[in-house]
Amino acid sequence: MLIVKKFGGTSVGNTERIFNVAKRCIEDYQKGNQVVVVLSAMGKQTDVLLDMAKEVNPKASKRELDMLLTTGEQTSVALMAMALDSLGVPAVSLNAFQVAMHTTTDYGNARLKRIDTQRIHFELDNRRIVVVTGFQGINKYDDYTTLGRGGSDTTAVALAAALHADACEIYTDVDGVFTADPRIVPSARKLSEITYDEMLELASLGAGVLHNRSVEMAKKHGVQLVVRSSLNTSEGTVVKEESKMEKMLVSGVATDKNVAQFAVEGLENKPGVAFKLFQHLANHQVNVDMIIQSVEHNGTQDICFTVTEDMAEVALETLERHRNTSLRCEKITITRDVAKVSVVGAGMMSNPGVAAKMFEALYDAGINIRQISTSEIRVTVLIDEKYTEDAAQAVHEAFSLEK
Amino acid sequence: MLIVKKFGGTSVGNTERIFNVAKRCIEDYQKGNQVVVVLSAMGKQTDVLLDMAKEVNPKASKRELDMLLTTGEQTSVALMAMALDSLGVPAVSLNAFQVAMHTTTDYGNARLKRIDTQRIHFELDNRRIVVVTGFQGINKYDDYTTLGRGGSDTTAVALAAALHADACEIYTDVDGVFTADPRIVPSARKLSEITYDEMLELASLGAGVLHNRSVEMAKKHGVQLVVRSSLNTSEGTVVKEESKMEKMLVSGVATDKNVAQFAVEGLENKPGVAFKLFQHLANHQVNVDMIIQSVEHNGTQDICFTVTEDMAEVALETLERHRNTSLRCEKITITRDVAKVSVVGAGMMSNPGVAAKMFEALYDAGINIRQISTSEIRVTVLIDEKYTEDAAQAVHEAFSLEK
Repeated sequence: MLIVKKFGGTSVGNTERIFNVAKRCIEDYQKGNQVVVVLSAMGKQTDVLLDMAKEVNPKASKRELDMLLTTGEQTSVALMAMALDSLGVPAVSLNAFQVAMHTTTDYGNARLKRIDTQRIHFELDNRRIVVVTGFQGINKYDDYTTLGRGGSDTTAVALAAALHADACEIYTDVDGVFTADPRIVPSARKLSEITYDEMLELASLGAGVLHNRSVEMAKKHGVQLVVRSSLNTSEGTVVKEESKMEKMLVSGVATDKNVAQFAVEGLENKPGVAFKLFQHLANHQVNVDMIIQSVEHNGTQDICFTVTEDMAEVALETLERHRNTSLRCEKITITRDVAKVSVVGAGMMSNPGVAAKMFEALYDAGINIRQISTSEIRVTVLIDEKYTEDAAQAVHEAFSLEK
Repeated sequence: MLIVKKFGGTSVGNTERIFNVAKRCIEDYQKGNQVVVVLSAMGKQTDVLLDMAKEVNPKASKRELDMLLTTGEQTSVALMAMALDSLGVPAVSLNAFQVAMHTTTDYGNARLKRIDTQRIHFELDNRRIVVVTGFQGINKYDDYTTLGRGGSDTTAVALAAALHADACEIYTDVDGVFTADPRIVPSARKLSEITYDEMLELASLGAGVLHNRSVEMAKKHGVQLVVRSSLNTSEGTVVKEESKMEKMLVSGVATDKNVAQFAVEGLENKPGVAFKLFQHLANHQVNVDMIIQSVEHNGTQDICFTVTEDMAEVALETLERHRNTSLRCEKITITRDVAKVSVVGAGMMSNPGVAAKMFEALYDAGINIRQISTSEIRVTVLIDEKYTEDAAQAVHEAFSLEK
């Protein structure tokens, strides 16, 4: 078997942890497997480097920031190769140039285009564990790039695809994917399997286990992922195309407090109004979610939508700036203390009634719904932030997810 | 003009110093010059990285050590490019892969073979200051290598040669090359010019301003060097093929306390004895200096030589191990408290009497000479270490070097 294993910065934060990771890799190696390890920068090293850059130039170019940040993973992989070697297993570390990992030119947020596999296969065939820098790539100018948030996960999945790996294991500090955040819903249960689509909905809802880009790439290339803990040997959660089990009606409840709700009232009811509104926001990199448009009354209409809380200020400024020119409206309201609660499940496509059951649970718990949005495999409601935990608990129970 | 400027780790040890270096580079840039900057790792960063490696694996492979150490210069160059940019001058940092700097395969002590200049010329032609990592290269396996001691100087000289630079400036924490170490001989005077050969003799005698490899490379490619201070704007010392001035009889006095003297007495007087002795030492990486062989008496002979003090133990063990097998001798004596004092000058080739004048000065100062060695442009004596300062002072005065 060829196994790609990815460990985050916390897992390689100090010498002791580096050796823990090394030992896990050696277990697989000694069973005769070929092992590729993808690493992030150690602990808070990326933040340390960013602080150094900030001291020199708060507006440093992304090109030079990437040049600086890529030293972080190179340090991790060199130390890991030394650790493996000291445990008697031949190993070699490789950076983005050595692999090579070809990306688009976008510094700070590049996308992987192509991975050369010759060097890695050569090293694997020589029975070495290959330790590869996550998060980084090189572009057509032979400059370093970085892959943005969740970049190392993406590196691991892309490598698994390019190498035709038999397994791709993403190690994290939780045991796998849960039916809900265990800190919010104590009876939350670890899922043994989940589909790519469910994982995508959960990731976009802030479940935080895997970044969307890595799941999208895994789905596209059919790479079966395992999300598991680097702290224990529990089995983790398999992310794959189709669950072997009967499709679960609902596989999980997700919550997200990083939300602000906008209400733009009294807009003219004519073509192009919604287009202009969201065009202005897009021009300022504001991602918009959960859009609803009211029916017309008295020749005007209202549009409500949500943004992430950190973008609320930018969104508000943008709307105010255009209020009296291209965007004529009567009133702009912003509500910050709201949260999203969602149920996700591939089974709901063929099972009506999921939304109704969710709304009933919330009604029974006395929680008011401010806004609703749905996809084929998800139902999301917007509620007052203070009820987030109660809502998650109520919905989790209603679908008997603890069982 | 195309100018290559090299700054050591101390010169880029913190943000303030990085900006000082940046400003010096910008002065040249704003006069219309093309500027290439070669940097070492910041301050003690290389030692920090070596300590990290030691903690993980005290016997880490040189290949992985180089992978780790090369992050040091990459950090420096990225931060320098950010600093230049923040001062309004476009800059780009390049590592050994990006240049590319091709070396031999020897990890930890590679030699530069070839430098591609296309990328650097492209960036210079676009009026950018190009900031290049010193000390590092890549070998035919596409692995990082490092150039060993004084590596960044070598990078700068090699770049100057490859780019056909008009000037190569090596910045250091002293004002230039002096007639003697000013800490030992207060009246020591800064030289405005010195030949490559004189610089080579001084470097090998521990003057410590430039590493031999960089001077050898400068001589080979006819690169005129300037050694000057990064702390002030004093003119420094030009290192070149021929001094414009009348060749100085003696240009400097060098001292070196890192010496131990071996006396191997009562060796059989037959062919191959000296060969075996030094072969054993070479096999253990012991560099031998100042060899003298006595004339025969009673069928045996003595051999004396010096080694650097840190290799004395290895040398002693090596000799003792072979004492009763391939190396039959009566006695091995080691003296550690000795020092070398040398006069160096390209003019002495055509001027006899330099050695005699030096010996006279030492005799007048009551200092006994233990051993003598000479080259075409150098006379070295071995004396008791405690007389080092007195000897340097006496010789410096005898040749009127303060004038």
